Amino acid sequence: MRIIAILSIAVTAMGQSPPTATVPGWKLSIEELRKQYSHYGVGRRLKPGVWPNNSRVAVSLSFDVDNATASLARGELGSEVISRGMYGAIDGLPRILNMLDRQSVPASFFIPAVSALLNPEMIPLILSKKRHEIGVHGWIHENLGILSDSAEEFRLLKQAIETLTKAMGKRPAGYRAPSWAMSPFTLRQVREAGFLYDSSLMASDDAYEITIDGKPSGVIELPIERILDDFPYFGAANGSLPSPEQVDQIYRAEFDVAYREGGLYILTMHPHITGHRSRVLWLERLIEYMKSKPGVWFATHEEVARYVKEHSGK
Amino acid sequence: MRIIAILSIAVTAMGQSPPTATVPGWKLSIEELRKQYSHYGVGRRLKPGVWPNNSRVAVSLSFDVDNATASLARGELGSEVISRGMYGAIDGLPRILNMLDRQSVPASFFIPAVSALLNPEMIPLILSKKRHEIGVHGWIHENLGILSDSAEEFRLLKQAIETLTKAMGKRPAGYRAPSWAMSPFTLRQVREAGFLYDSSLMASDDAYEITIDGKPSGVIELPIERILDDFPYFGAANGSLPSPEQVDQIYRAEFDVAYREGGLYILTMHPHITGHRSRVLWLERLIEYMKSKPGVWFATHEEVARYVKEHSGK
Amino acid sequence: MRIIAILSIAVTAMGQSPPTATVPGWKLSIEELRKQYSHYGVGRRLKPGVWPNNSRVAVSLSFDVDNATASLARGELGSEVISRGMYGAIDGLPRILNMLDRQSVPASFFIPAVSALLNPEMIPLILSKKRHEIGVHGWIHENLGILSDSAEEFRLLKQAIETLTKAMGKRPAGYRAPSWAMSPFTLRQVREAGFLYDSSLMASDDAYEITIDGKPSGVIELPIERILDDFPYFGAANGSLPSPEQVDQIYRAEFDVAYREGGLYILTMHPHITGHRSRVLWLERLIEYMKSKPGVWFATHEEVARYVKEHSGK
Amino acid sequence: MRIIAILSIAVTAMGQSPPTATVPGWKLSIEELRKQYSHYGVGRRLKPGVWPNNSRVAVSLSFDVDNATASLARGELGSEVISRGMYGAIDGLPRILNMLDRQSVPASFFIPAVSALLNPEMIPLILSKKRHEIGVHGWIHENLGILSDSAEEFRLLKQAIETLTKAMGKRPAGYRAPSWAMSPFTLRQVREAGFLYDSSLMASDDAYEITIDGKPSGVIELPIERILDDFPYFGAANGSLPSPEQVDQIYRAEFDVAYREGGLYILTMHPHITGHRSRVLWLERLIEYMKSKPGVWFATHEEVARYVKEHSGK
Repeated sequence: MRIIAILSIAVTAMGQSPPTATVPGWKLSIEELRKQYSHYGVGRRLKPGVWPNNSRVAVSLSFDVDNATASLARGELGSEVISRGMYGAIDGLPRILNMLDRQSVPASFFIPAVSALLNPEMIPLILSKKRHEIGVHGWIHENLGILSDSAEEFRLLKQAIETLTKAMGKRPAGYRAPSWAMSPFTLRQVREAGFLYDSSLMASDDAYEITIDGKPSGVIELPIERILDDFPYFGAANGSLPSPEQVDQIYRAEFDVAYREGGLYILTMHPHITGHRSRVLWLERLIEYMKSKPGVWFATHEEVARYVKEHSGK
Repeated sequence: MRIIAILSIAVTAMGQSPPTATVPGWKLSIEELRKQYSHYGVGRRLKPGVWPNNSRVAVSLSFDVDNATASLARGELGSEVISRGMYGAIDGLPRILNMLDRQSVPASFFIPAVSALLNPEMIPLILSKKRHEIGVHGWIHENLGILSDSAEEFRLLKQAIETLTKAMGKRPAGYRAPSWAMSPFTLRQVREAGFLYDSSLMASDDAYEITIDGKPSGVIELPIERILDDFPYFGAANGSLPSPEQVDQIYRAEFDVAYREGGLYILTMHPHITGHRSRVLWLERLIEYMKSKPGVWFATHEEVARYVKEHSGK
Repeated sequence: MRIIAILSIAVTAMGQSPPTATVPGWKLSIEELRKQYSHYGVGRRLKPGVWPNNSRVAVSLSFDVDNATASLARGELGSEVISRGMYGAIDGLPRILNMLDRQSVPASFFIPAVSALLNPEMIPLILSKKRHEIGVHGWIHENLGILSDSAEEFRLLKQAIETLTKAMGKRPAGYRAPSWAMSPFTLRQVREAGFLYDSSLMASDDAYEITIDGKPSGVIELPIERILDDFPYFGAANGSLPSPEQVDQIYRAEFDVAYREGGLYILTMHPHITGHRSRVLWLERLIEYMKSKPGVWFATHEEVARYVKEHSGK
Repeated sequence: MRIIAILSIAVTAMGQSPPTATVPGWKLSIEELRKQYSHYGVGRRLKPGVWPNNSRVAVSLSFDVDNATASLARGELGSEVISRGMYGAIDGLPRILNMLDRQSVPASFFIPAVSALLNPEMIPLILSKKRHEIGVHGWIHENLGILSDSAEEFRLLKQAIETLTKAMGKRPAGYRAPSWAMSPFTLRQVREAGFLYDSSLMASDDAYEITIDGKPSGVIELPIERILDDFPYFGAANGSLPSPEQVDQIYRAEFDVAYREGGLYILTMHPHITGHRSRVLWLERLIEYMKSKPGVWFATHEEVARYVKEHSGK
């Protein structure tokens, strides 16, 4: 039991995650494989010809406000993981919000409901800045892949939506799966809950309509990528941490091509990771770099989703 | 069962792979060890004195079009691994093909048959560009080392050859083992299937004739190396990803010495890994760097194999 | 048994550490989660308006003199880990002390009692330099999270305090948990032992009063961070070691913002890790860089704790 | 069984290695701990006041010619590990020897006996260059820590000495433990076999006489370090490989301080790792850098050991 739990962490750290099939792929027919492959499908491509105000690129910053919830979800109560998570609420989020304010740039915050309940000052602080968005990020950053019960998963999703709706005064428009890891039930539940968009899949750089098992879902995907995530670089606190400058080099290179291709550029960060002194400084410099180019549209995920829904793929 | 499966992934990630002997090496005689060691042997060295058109170096780019097949083979159906793999077909391969076209450089594409069947648009797209080559890369990127049945392995190889032959309109000339990992049966099956060359072993920088258990096989080896593979750098999506510039520094340094030594330079990449925005940009710059030198012959693996077979080691 | 032991090492290496709850977080009520989350709480913030002599920033260097104790604690007696640990006493600590002397900078040394007993020359050597501080760092760098007996933990803590008190001639004022990993009992034992401060938690960049289960403890926290620790970079002797310059880039960037924000800057290092030739050279250059700025107050942890206790948060 | 085997690989990769005690350290008395700690002790320091020809620093390059033996010892027969190891004999060693010849620099080669038997051309090739030294590196790069039988260990050591003596025409003077990992029996066996020096421990930068369980052994230690080993950087073929330039930065920084301190500088490399194109190029540049300084004495390990024995610590 305990071994399994520990190993699943190790495995997650290598980018391998449940759910897993009971039979290896070489025992299956091509029809069965196609079914597995097309559960999370790419439908209508939603890359608009031009962005608002004739902008050339859309930049949408996001912060997953996990704090200590991923540890609490796994039952890990060590002083290191709990206090490191707490940093996100104490120092990380305020420093990030001040910087965004200084730069007049909006962002989307995906908050596990328990994270919001443990630090109830966070949502009002985010909303005190006019343009930010808040989205769903699970009940307690639960690992959906190891939940095996769709009713329990749905109960947790419902609780999460209700908690955020109450704190925000309106229903959230967007969903991001904890750890970007869905169960076989998640995508249908996201569609049934009426979300405008999901931001957990990686099949393209640009937005697309998700197809579920080959059928259009009406849900817009705003794709994320580990390349543009702070976790692979800074998340493993005991790995070999790169300098912010090294990461900046990667983030800028991806931006430069997004700019050239006229695409969508989404960054995923975490207040308890990127909220540190040197990293917010570096993020501010990256934003200043992007602002120095003509034609960069900074928008929340929701604004991007609404725009591509109206202006693309027709 | 499950523990074994997970651990074997961890072990693969560290470069240790099956098959394994039942007895540790210090219990064996030197004759038994020599037998183990010489299963994959180096025969005739095939480094020609000069390359076509008096070129000084041969550069052969290859792309393993795995997409999601390695995950499907292991039965891993997580939204992250499936959608990340899908990226190879949706954005990665088209971006790479456009760039190669712009640079007029040929490449060899090794495609697991299931990958080709799940995205049947890929092979026609590759072949619409005149000079590219397509080679075999397993049925579903199966881990040959953990297959214990040579008949099943042969059935999968046969299916793979037939699928590609049908899609290409001709029989593929080259073979690359999934994950570069062979079973004890693979090498003989590759010889018996009549492949011109294999590109899965690492015993030299330059081409050689493979000997199997000490006997010449007639199969040419075009060696690969983890140093010149995108996977160690970018493959572990949750490791500490280097910037394309850092990898470029390594790839150029290897090229510079290959150029000085008049050798063969083979790069292995993956559309779902290197097909990303900043990485294709970087690869294009590397190609431009190589083209700026006099006497660089860009060729497919098949062209290299045919040339060294005729011009070397006599 | 053995598997568990080995795995717990792997897990520690990824920053996940015991203690763990028996029930995953999504099975708990928000009250139960709040109880888990607030065991290690943040109370009164202790960031003074100004530092002594009108300084803008406080810099406090610390060295955890573990040497081989973490290995001995785990029962690992391999020649590599034992001799590498021994290096801390033989070459590392003397080289560091000489450099600090040259720079006239004080530091705090946290020493597991067994480490001091195995190399009894260390404490007199440290104390022969006037301004340094010595603090508690466990009996034998025991992993508190896997001890399940609060009486045994208390016995080890008592032994540690007595050993250092005897060697120093006075009672130590500060505590740092081995591996920064507390058991559920540790924080209360630290308070009951009458320590002025703890330096093992990460919830802020600046000092604060620890609350235990929501109640003020009177113990000051001087927070540490993996970013400012030598272990993530250099500790895994077989990982990919960065150059001292790469780490220096990170340490300076964090310092620059601490300086701008008027905060506290704490570095954690180890004589058997940072005591190597090139790393002490680099640390000396970092100190010279900090000294080149006006208004940097170098102090021991104890001096910082006494100052913030008197000048903050009133 | 199999799980243990796989895990011990993982553990080795993190620098933790057997042998392990059956009781954790916090259950032991300080006398018992002192006994464990002082098995591999530091005796007389052997840092001479000056090096031959009034040189300021002694540089001794070493190559562990493991090739595929570490894999064969573990029973790992995968095509990747076997062919990568074979590269050491085919391309790596010849390229290194040519470069050393060009630079007129001697080196010490530690060769597992089985490696020499599988590629019998290697020892004559090394000895055809006048100044190089060959030393013992186990029978088949066996993991001594997991051997539990001192008689079997001694038999393997004896076979190794005899094999090299026969191939070289004289008895080797030096010993290096495979993976730098000793069993509880190794050190006594090294002393009883009459070796002049060992080069497997890490307790200092400079040479010293080993004490075994507190008693002088007469054996000189020429210490090695992971910082100055190619394995942590390039050995894990699937980790994130640094560029040769990044490693060069570290190797030079260590050299610069060794030069300043007048010490001993030992590098450990492997033909199947450092023998690659770009890495030999980089090593040649490092050697040229060192040669550009006045007063650098290049010597084999044996020459260093004989010199420090005569000129130090009296």
